[in-house]
Amino acid sequence: MPVSTVSDYIDRHFDDTIAKLARWCAQPSISTENVGVEEMARLAAHDLSQSGFEVKVYETEGFPIILAVAGPRHAPCMLIYNHYDVQPVGDLAEWTSPPFEPQIRDGKMYGRGVADTKSNIVARLDALNAVRAVRGELPVRVVWLLEGEEEIGSPHLDRFVAEHRHDLKADGCVWEFGGYTWDGRPNITLGLKGMLSVELVARGAKRDLHSASAAYVPSPVWRLIWALAAIKTPDSRVQIPGFYSSVTVPTEEQARLVEQIPDETQRDLESIGLQSYLNGMQGMQVYMARAFHPTANIQGIIAGYNGPGSKTVLPREARAKLDIRLVPDQDPEEIFQALRTFLKERGFHDIEVEHIPGDGDLLPAINDPEALFIRLVRQACAEVSGKPPVITPSSEGSGPMALFTRKPPVGLGIPTAAFGTGYPDSRAHAPDENIRLDDMRAHMHTVARLVELMAQRSGLS
Amino acid sequence: MPVSTVSDYIDRHFDDTIAKLARWCAQPSISTENVGVEEMARLAAHDLSQSGFEVKVYETEGFPIILAVAGPRHAPCMLIYNHYDVQPVGDLAEWTSPPFEPQIRDGKMYGRGVADTKSNIVARLDALNAVRAVRGELPVRVVWLLEGEEEIGSPHLDRFVAEHRHDLKADGCVWEFGGYTWDGRPNITLGLKGMLSVELVARGAKRDLHSASAAYVPSPVWRLIWALAAIKTPDSRVQIPGFYSSVTVPTEEQARLVEQIPDETQRDLESIGLQSYLNGMQGMQVYMARAFHPTANIQGIIAGYNGPGSKTVLPREARAKLDIRLVPDQDPEEIFQALRTFLKERGFHDIEVEHIPGDGDLLPAINDPEALFIRLVRQACAEVSGKPPVITPSSEGSGPMALFTRKPPVGLGIPTAAFGTGYPDSRAHAPDENIRLDDMRAHMHTVARLVELMAQRSGLS
Repeated sequence: MPVSTVSDYIDRHFDDTIAKLARWCAQPSISTENVGVEEMARLAAHDLSQSGFEVKVYETEGFPIILAVAGPRHAPCMLIYNHYDVQPVGDLAEWTSPPFEPQIRDGKMYGRGVADTKSNIVARLDALNAVRAVRGELPVRVVWLLEGEEEIGSPHLDRFVAEHRHDLKADGCVWEFGGYTWDGRPNITLGLKGMLSVELVARGAKRDLHSASAAYVPSPVWRLIWALAAIKTPDSRVQIPGFYSSVTVPTEEQARLVEQIPDETQRDLESIGLQSYLNGMQGMQVYMARAFHPTANIQGIIAGYNGPGSKTVLPREARAKLDIRLVPDQDPEEIFQALRTFLKERGFHDIEVEHIPGDGDLLPAINDPEALFIRLVRQACAEVSGKPPVITPSSEGSGPMALFTRKPPVGLGIPTAAFGTGYPDSRAHAPDENIRLDDMRAHMHTVARLVELMAQRSGLS
Repeated sequence: MPVSTVSDYIDRHFDDTIAKLARWCAQPSISTENVGVEEMARLAAHDLSQSGFEVKVYETEGFPIILAVAGPRHAPCMLIYNHYDVQPVGDLAEWTSPPFEPQIRDGKMYGRGVADTKSNIVARLDALNAVRAVRGELPVRVVWLLEGEEEIGSPHLDRFVAEHRHDLKADGCVWEFGGYTWDGRPNITLGLKGMLSVELVARGAKRDLHSASAAYVPSPVWRLIWALAAIKTPDSRVQIPGFYSSVTVPTEEQARLVEQIPDETQRDLESIGLQSYLNGMQGMQVYMARAFHPTANIQGIIAGYNGPGSKTVLPREARAKLDIRLVPDQDPEEIFQALRTFLKERGFHDIEVEHIPGDGDLLPAINDPEALFIRLVRQACAEVSGKPPVITPSSEGSGPMALFTRKPPVGLGIPTAAFGTGYPDSRAHAPDENIRLDDMRAHMHTVARLVELMAQRSGLS
């Protein structure tokens, strides 16, 4: 079966694929704010059914999980993990075009969710459609898991995966996202950081007071600031006892992979409008931090009066939300407990520390670059692009990859690779989120090629 | 001329006075937000004219300053300082009744501006009306200065006072606010803290980033937190070099006055819903802090995402507003410069420090309790209430008193006393601002008595 025919099919129907992507991106699906998520689930289930998948929609206490299956039962099996939810839009004034009116400008499509990760879903769907159209049937089995709560920490995914272990057996897993370098080299990411999301709350008097009382009344704002300053010091070191002691990355091999990543740090810097990186890191130091440094980020802090001019109040409450990203083998629950104990021991009995409601913890995950499925992904990427892929041992981002990759009983033990439609300026989670359409097309060809490579290895598992 | 007749007049017309106060409080006049301030200026000028004052309205670059004069030119002269602007209302949900629909409940009137300071204005106005009605004319000269920018730091008052020094000559000044203890003892306050209002801004990337980049991109939120934690440490000490070195209070006499203040700290604590004061202070320590401790209060801080759930962003900007209250003889401009230098020296070159636009600096002020005018105020308070007044050498609050009390050329050198209609639970700047109507009536009698006492001292100046 000539691959070129599949390639031709993909290219000839690319305008239809773009139109489908625009429909997906016009449907808001903000899990954080419960906007449009159910409607998006219906659209996704419909389009998967239309493409010959047997689709089951599982309700959870949150948003539905979709399980779609196609292809012969005993062929090599490719699991795909995606999410159909997107981030909140943030400040509309910072968008060049409205976030849910996808627009093509200069070879790129802009809109919320375009990169993270609706273009990945649509690209994979139409790549599989192309294979089926040309071959008459899929030569591999595809099990596709789509959830609607990735942007809030996938709180119901672990239970679903545990309950559907048998349905999810596969030889390899294609991760939700991935992308290309500025220069168009495919980037295969083999790990994700874990995540712990916490909110810190300090409370004072039962109402806002006149700020004159600051001479004799404790301020919850200052208490929160001092607690935060205790958690992370100006050298960017997290001071929670034991925070770094269970870190097992990088191995020498992982460090070598990072050293082979092409240095695009200067271009990245320009893209975000900064003069320098954290603590003056440069080049490979940046890539090492991306892959292997845990973080403690303040995503938001708020207290008191923040309108125009001045209002002399002593606020009654102060709040901060933190996302703490973890690397192998840090454990989010251990660190949560250690954080609580640490604050108490440092005298911050008054600071409440809670998980952000709805956000689940995520374990860090990392894959062996020499696993068979990973080698096929590398081959497909190399053949389609004509360039050696960049192997990123771990992403700077997080996700529930451990559920798939970690050895049982924690995970399913499936080799997982993140390669997809994005690029360094995709602005996931930010205004003007976008993809380069050429990257999306290249990803489609890569997925189609990977299907062929898997089919040639009937003894894959 | 029997004083009792004036007293009778005040009591017989008290319902009309309450109705006038309700009209004043129904008119919003939020200088911070430019809501209703000009309308309030017109209402104030109208009511002063109706009461026989010669009224001049001076436009400024901000809101008008009203100068109203009545009484014989060569009699002893009482200057009154008030402001007709009020604080923003804050969270409407925290008000029992709408802030600009004044309501009487349980002997108290509630509404924004009731205590701070419209009841003081209306009480004084109708007290003077009673004296005039009974006597046929005022036995003293009254010069009344009302501004509309006190809640934003009186940015145009210093220039106005300097340009109208001659019009403002007086034997004593009645300050805008004041009040009674929980138990109804009149409280005469003889000083006010100064004020420096600053905003700190930290900026990062040109847009919010995915929080995964926290591994290698500096966070303006952390930078702001570390800068704030450098400014004030958990022991509540301000670390700006020289901050405490120019403090000249309390003198032994001032400390003695504080020791005579009745201890209502336990009741105050209950009223604000706290278990203990800052750093465990008790009793006289609290009153000493109120009068003589400078503060550094964070009135607001904001950065990033503060909606429901989680949004994994690394914010591009973080802001905090501080009001720093000063005691004699700290200088706001010196401290502003010292703060900037301090942050630079501590490595916080990236933190912008600016005055909050529209907010002027205020110098601290304190008066001699034995000045003749102050003694007359003490006498009037004692006679009307039948109780010895509490002498508070300095308020915990701030205001432009230095313009009136400090020796020329900084001020006018006029002894100034703050006594008025409030009480410890008046909730100035907070929801459910209120006064006890009995306190307002007592203040009216006190002002009328003070006029009589001044008239008996024709050689007052």
